Amino acid sequence: MSGRLIGVGVGPGDPELMTLKAMRVLGEADLVVHFAKNGNPSQARMIAASHLKAGTPELPLYYPMTSEQPSNGRVYRDALREFYDEAATILAMHLDAGRAVAVICEGDPLFYGSYMHLHVRLAPRYPTQVIAGVTGMSGCWSAVGTPIAQGDDVFMVLPATLPEPELERHLEDADAAVVMKLGRHLPKIRRTLARVGRLERAIYVERGSTKAAVMMRLADKPDDAAPYFAIVLVPGWEERA
Amino acid sequence: MSGRLIGVGVGPGDPELMTLKAMRVLGEADLVVHFAKNGNPSQARMIAASHLKAGTPELPLYYPMTSEQPSNGRVYRDALREFYDEAATILAMHLDAGRAVAVICEGDPLFYGSYMHLHVRLAPRYPTQVIAGVTGMSGCWSAVGTPIAQGDDVFMVLPATLPEPELERHLEDADAAVVMKLGRHLPKIRRTLARVGRLERAIYVERGSTKAAVMMRLADKPDDAAPYFAIVLVPGWEERA
Repeated sequence: MSGRLIGVGVGPGDPELMTLKAMRVLGEADLVVHFAKNGNPSQARMIAASHLKAGTPELPLYYPMTSEQPSNGRVYRDALREFYDEAATILAMHLDAGRAVAVICEGDPLFYGSYMHLHVRLAPRYPTQVIAGVTGMSGCWSAVGTPIAQGDDVFMVLPATLPEPELERHLEDADAAVVMKLGRHLPKIRRTLARVGRLERAIYVERGSTKAAVMMRLADKPDDAAPYFAIVLVPGWEERA
Repeated sequence: MSGRLIGVGVGPGDPELMTLKAMRVLGEADLVVHFAKNGNPSQARMIAASHLKAGTPELPLYYPMTSEQPSNGRVYRDALREFYDEAATILAMHLDAGRAVAVICEGDPLFYGSYMHLHVRLAPRYPTQVIAGVTGMSGCWSAVGTPIAQGDDVFMVLPATLPEPELERHLEDADAAVVMKLGRHLPKIRRTLARVGRLERAIYVERGSTKAAVMMRLADKPDDAAPYFAIVLVPGWEERA
């Protein structure tokens, strides 16, 4: 009898934004798996910490050290593919042994998350369940308290890594948007938003649903320093209805 | 001493996809408010039912009967504006009386929800908190078990009500998309997806995170009947990494 794979969204950061279902499943898991960077604790692990049953075995999966490689380069991609292949092989052994394997993920498992790479490798072969979670972006706009999209708005999620002309085209065509993965791209985002006339209402958010949250109008942010996981909200809402 | 307004996301349908925070806040509320159509029970109320404290007063807000009016017409908009103005006035009386007023919402309160209309009217005057929730679309792709977006994907939420050329332009420019508010627009969505070469991988989902869920490849759906709240998923994920 084979086990089951469970992708568990643990939400955007505040442990109270975990779902009842995520909590229940963590209590039933035989093995809890999380992704982490070497030397850093897993964010998902920190969010779920208070809900893990004492004594449940854990398996941290450490991303390969590839920061010296461009993230769109061949070497980086090959290293990642190998990493996910190996991780899936290890998880398959636990699944073959009949275990309930819970992979915990920040936010929502199937929305820009590492879990997906295990999912596509294992879901065709094992019973699999995905527990939806509150996304990081929902955590951010809720913390700010800014309505993001309504009615017939077109809403877009745009990675800040896009080339400037593409960003501009998308932002001109969106009613509402979230720009993700800011990091060193903030000056480009600021320029592009100014050019399409959306800088005034844009909001910069760091660690939106934690106590260390930083939120301000992007136009008021005095510097261009931004962590990778900071985002910019471009609300679609104007005073309507 | 004034009360506080709380927008509470109760998630996509499965009561277990409510957050711990939503549950706690519902236990502390002096008044629970929900939107409903005349003659129909509130969806949010049904989701939250088992978590409401017995004896907590409730206030249903019934949308005005405007189904005979076009939804983009002046009469409909005026009726809605008046409805939200009146609702905000009633809530303000409870807030002035020092009550904790929880407005429960399907999905996430600030993402395409009616709560926003109360939020913009009341948040400037009263202490306000928004509890993020799992969105309907997360509930759907998790139920299907299909990775929706990864890496540098551009993700879009598109209302099916958009004119066909706009839909086509957006779908050609998106890596991943969700088309919402299907209703009578399904034939148009099918045509547009076929034209941009995305029909094969598109997935039709109705009531994604409930026991009555309907999920199938859109190409396999034999008819064009779709409720208003059905959605189409256009996954961005291909076999990468």
